[in-house]
Amino acid sequence: MAINTQVAGDSAAPPITEILGHFVAGHPSRGWSDDVEREAHRTMLNWLGCAIGAADHEAARSALHAVQFLDPAPQATVLGRVERVDVANAALINGITSHTFDFDDTHLKTIIHPAGPVCSAVLALAEKTGATGRQLMDAVVLGIDVSCRVGNMIYPDHYDRGWHITGTTGTLGAAAACARLLGLDAHRTTMALGIAASQPVGLREQFGTMTKPFHPGAAAKAGLMSALMAQYGFTSSGRALEAPRGFAQVISTKFDWDEVTQALGSRFEISYNAYKPFACGIVIHPSIDACVQLRQRGVRAEDIEHIDLRVHPLVLELTGKKEPADGLAAKFSVYHGCAVGLIFGKAGEAEYDDAVVQRADVVELRRKVRARIDPDMNEAAVSMSAVLLTGERVQVDVEHAIGSLQRPMSNGELERKFHDLAAPVVGERRAQELAEACWRLADASDVRGLCALARPEDAPVT
Amino acid sequence: MAINTQVAGDSAAPPITEILGHFVAGHPSRGWSDDVEREAHRTMLNWLGCAIGAADHEAARSALHAVQFLDPAPQATVLGRVERVDVANAALINGITSHTFDFDDTHLKTIIHPAGPVCSAVLALAEKTGATGRQLMDAVVLGIDVSCRVGNMIYPDHYDRGWHITGTTGTLGAAAACARLLGLDAHRTTMALGIAASQPVGLREQFGTMTKPFHPGAAAKAGLMSALMAQYGFTSSGRALEAPRGFAQVISTKFDWDEVTQALGSRFEISYNAYKPFACGIVIHPSIDACVQLRQRGVRAEDIEHIDLRVHPLVLELTGKKEPADGLAAKFSVYHGCAVGLIFGKAGEAEYDDAVVQRADVVELRRKVRARIDPDMNEAAVSMSAVLLTGERVQVDVEHAIGSLQRPMSNGELERKFHDLAAPVVGERRAQELAEACWRLADASDVRGLCALARPEDAPVT
Repeated sequence: MAINTQVAGDSAAPPITEILGHFVAGHPSRGWSDDVEREAHRTMLNWLGCAIGAADHEAARSALHAVQFLDPAPQATVLGRVERVDVANAALINGITSHTFDFDDTHLKTIIHPAGPVCSAVLALAEKTGATGRQLMDAVVLGIDVSCRVGNMIYPDHYDRGWHITGTTGTLGAAAACARLLGLDAHRTTMALGIAASQPVGLREQFGTMTKPFHPGAAAKAGLMSALMAQYGFTSSGRALEAPRGFAQVISTKFDWDEVTQALGSRFEISYNAYKPFACGIVIHPSIDACVQLRQRGVRAEDIEHIDLRVHPLVLELTGKKEPADGLAAKFSVYHGCAVGLIFGKAGEAEYDDAVVQRADVVELRRKVRARIDPDMNEAAVSMSAVLLTGERVQVDVEHAIGSLQRPMSNGELERKFHDLAAPVVGERRAQELAEACWRLADASDVRGLCALARPEDAPVT
Repeated sequence: MAINTQVAGDSAAPPITEILGHFVAGHPSRGWSDDVEREAHRTMLNWLGCAIGAADHEAARSALHAVQFLDPAPQATVLGRVERVDVANAALINGITSHTFDFDDTHLKTIIHPAGPVCSAVLALAEKTGATGRQLMDAVVLGIDVSCRVGNMIYPDHYDRGWHITGTTGTLGAAAACARLLGLDAHRTTMALGIAASQPVGLREQFGTMTKPFHPGAAAKAGLMSALMAQYGFTSSGRALEAPRGFAQVISTKFDWDEVTQALGSRFEISYNAYKPFACGIVIHPSIDACVQLRQRGVRAEDIEHIDLRVHPLVLELTGKKEPADGLAAKFSVYHGCAVGLIFGKAGEAEYDDAVVQRADVVELRRKVRARIDPDMNEAAVSMSAVLLTGERVQVDVEHAIGSLQRPMSNGELERKFHDLAAPVVGERRAQELAEACWRLADASDVRGLCALARPEDAPVT
């Protein structure tokens, strides 16, 4: 047995684990601009809608069955369901559901979906401790800053190697958020980050299976437990993130320490969070957006002779299915996306229901869509030309699709997305109340009111 | 945002995830030699002793406090304690305690400590389901075969990169063992391995902190949950281990698929498991062994003028502390090891107690030990020459230290080690009964009897 005692790599890295520990423990409450604060509320609303919307998905039910095997204490809400489970497993399941539809938020610089791990962990914990909305929002902003800064540090090499960066960095974000919510000091917060660093979750090979949304759920749970253990004195390496045999150097070939430290406390990564307006891969969004705009100009499906799209090559490579048979296949069809965009003016999870995919008018319209690749077309853009039965030609050019940082969804659009996801699960009225509670969350004296609203209307508000 | 859609790496790997899934689900009960069966019982006894011995260590108490925050159901025994917690968290804590003293087993080909993740997960689960001893032992042998074969596949590159291989492969071993115990079919066992593959735990940077023993505990818990989720229909990639963006290719540069498939079902890796006779790093073992042999020849501490050691260079590089101040430092002192070896005839956890380290006779004797490096000396060997006050010289040469595969500990020696660890915690009588129950474990109609004995004597046998 030969043991390698040599340590290669960068042993002169700055002490980023401790730097983040001090930052998370010590940054002032609400120590950021109104824009950051607004984005945090938008992030929460979007995350809540996604999690509630998928509450009865097979992945949620199956994970919940496994958790129920443990006879969990009813400490925290499983969003969109009547069951309550212990805080760690509520974090797990809410993390899973928030990512099940692939409809959640995206930190575009790293393709991290930051809310899943962070919000799932910290809301469950806040419900148990009876934290205020202010404490919750502070933890969300700081936790997401940690996961996205760590993401910036190792992206893209880490992602290219095959890691699902949402899970790997999410454990750290969740640990940071929970440590903040628990009021841990800088040393214990550093220990929490250290414990979390040993548990990177997520392989890209899992894409297309339930284990993909499991990643943010498992990250939420691992991060929460790391913070709890640190609270009670469990120790880890104070250099767990940066040491030669630490997190960054073990899971990535790129580790740009400056991404963690630069403008820490003045630039907040949650500012770069984006929300999907459509429940499918982002490469189709410009095309769907163009069809929604066509509808807004008064054009209807029955007016169409055919639609011509000029798209980036990746659109047909990833989403070129002409005749999708069901909802899952339709997510990989730019043709289906265009059809529902024009017929319904949206492409939410409901527009990917099997029944919608098979509807005669939808099938007929998507057959009228033609797509042609253009290597000069930007990925974020599309050029669409609709030829009407009258012979008239309507041109729509999209430079940046709705949902991009350049054209963010408005609060009203986000709220409609939330409503479409949540109302079928918790009821119209409660979905409305929940959205209102979410916009006012920072002022809530106790987050439990919001949690109680995130359950089906027939469940008592406890 | 540019997404890398190219997949590099070996995409023609054999389907090892499915192969292991079929193997674990389908291999016959007790489908191995008497030697393998005997080693499985030795592995269990050694693991039980280590876990019970560390039951009141600060790491155990701190982890237990975190778990108690979740109000866990009293489903399974925390070994050596009166508390009972849910099966997933019992797996966590027992995994932590079994590795806390660094005194557990070692699969020498990979430096994996295989029992921690596997036994901790499967015993907790078996206690809940009321499994038979036979079912438990089948799961242990197969689970350890999975983790160690995966270890063989990726060692040493994976370890050299900085991963703590006990945790990373342990999650898979625990998932396999739990899937077997739950009676999952080949497909669901494959899914369990797939879910587990997304959760490799453990960085070598954590060595020296509580997060090192956390690794096998977290692996046990993650593996157990993966099996439970698979039982209830949760899905993962059926190629999670071998795909280009799967486990092996993401966390290692070496992936020798044959190590998983060769002689699968006829060669069992548990056969290569070894047990530490001494509670310290393995490089000192030959020297301590020599001093124990010196004592067996009738030499006593008061007879010694001085002791000369000729050792492999790594011995002084890693364990050259001349005047250790406390138990932790003494673990890195070949001088202390020799002193207690001669005075007590052993070097268990008790001989690393602070009070022992500071005892006058121990201090005096270790000052009489001199060590000289010899690059030609094998790592497993030592040459010792004791000069007595009478002028007599006694020579002891050790080619393979006790505890090596060449000179394994006898069952009696293992039982004494077990007793030294367990008796101070559960009492003399119960330690004796527990050892007897462990040797007969395969015949137990219900493993709960053994679990009940693994609690302090003042706790009721339930």
